[in-house]
Amino acid sequence: MIKTSQLQVQTRGNGQVVNITDPVAAIVADCGVRAGVITLFTVGSTAGLTTTEYEPGLANHDLKAAFERIAPEEGSYEHESTWHDDNGHSHVRASLLGPSLSVPFVEGCLTLGTWQQIVLVDFDTRARTRIVVCQIIGE
Amino acid sequence: MIKTSQLQVQTRGNGQVVNITDPVAAIVADCGVRAGVITLFTVGSTAGLTTTEYEPGLANHDLKAAFERIAPEEGSYEHESTWHDDNGHSHVRASLLGPSLSVPFVEGCLTLGTWQQIVLVDFDTRARTRIVVCQIIGE
Amino acid sequence: MIKTSQLQVQTRGNGQVVNITDPVAAIVADCGVRAGVITLFTVGSTAGLTTTEYEPGLANHDLKAAFERIAPEEGSYEHESTWHDDNGHSHVRASLLGPSLSVPFVEGCLTLGTWQQIVLVDFDTRARTRIVVCQIIGE
Repeated sequence: MIKTSQLQVQTRGNGQVVNITDPVAAIVADCGVRAGVITLFTVGSTAGLTTTEYEPGLANHDLKAAFERIAPEEGSYEHESTWHDDNGHSHVRASLLGPSLSVPFVEGCLTLGTWQQIVLVDFDTRARTRIVVCQIIGE
Repeated sequence: MIKTSQLQVQTRGNGQVVNITDPVAAIVADCGVRAGVITLFTVGSTAGLTTTEYEPGLANHDLKAAFERIAPEEGSYEHESTWHDDNGHSHVRASLLGPSLSVPFVEGCLTLGTWQQIVLVDFDTRARTRIVVCQIIGE
Repeated sequence: MIKTSQLQVQTRGNGQVVNITDPVAAIVADCGVRAGVITLFTVGSTAGLTTTEYEPGLANHDLKAAFERIAPEEGSYEHESTWHDDNGHSHVRASLLGPSLSVPFVEGCLTLGTWQQIVLVDFDTRARTRIVVCQIIGE
């Protein structure tokens, strides 16, 4: 059985880490499927998905610092000189983090750890409304 | 319903970013399955998969610069001293990017954004023929 | 058909790279499903999954060096000052590597390359017993 839905996620961009665990868990709990996998996919090329312990230190500071080492905001990007844009670092960070995440569930519950939340990281340089496709395959 | 196929992708290696969106979309369009997920998996340990806006600035310059920060080509690698090889950085980059990508599709279309393409990044130090396993699960 | 099991993996933490290919391959071989995908998901927010050529140079040195560039062990982390903890770098590294991996299998065999192994990387600062959820969807 396959059920596809989508989440709309409002973000402030600029590396904001948004905890989407509750709405994803609600989709799983309400789908009528006991066991399976939910595939999450963020539409667009300047955001990514992963898991983290969602607490202010990691979400607001430590993850950003790592991405700043990988692709500095004030660095020089061909993407920006070509398109007169300002989000070269956003694209690079999103490609590295990746757009998809697959989380198994059993007895209607995601198999997350206690301190492990599903997050969308929006690297774009402005506020965005993000679509996360949520597709359940199960039985 | 499960259908497994594979793509052969010719690359020049050395961090080449290859846009494989069209052949992946064709597999999805032709499979006779309306909704589901396509799991892509690159065989081998010196290439990875992700999505990006496929344009020359990002593909030919900006992504490479980030991977050069993470694992410099001219860095010192135990892999190279052990095996008298030259692709330590290729392995490290591929492990970080990851070999698998899961993309949902609905009504026969991948749920990609307009400026979001599926790419294989070949980090090896020579031209390669890559196999990407493409497995559809759907109904 | 969906079958969910789990692996227990003993680690020493501190970036240890553990080869879990054999137990994963055994789950696939024994499940009675010919073709499908195995979704692997590591429970907890200080470990991740990927593939690599599992040899001592990469596993014990080169991967660690790259993660040290991204999130230095001796760096300053808000997570640590908030929680009086010592594993800020572990969280950041785990989020970047990602907790999930999807590997197709055909005729009961994982579609891995010859020199491509499935690994769990435990970034925590102490020995851990890790749970990896292994969920097969196939026919």
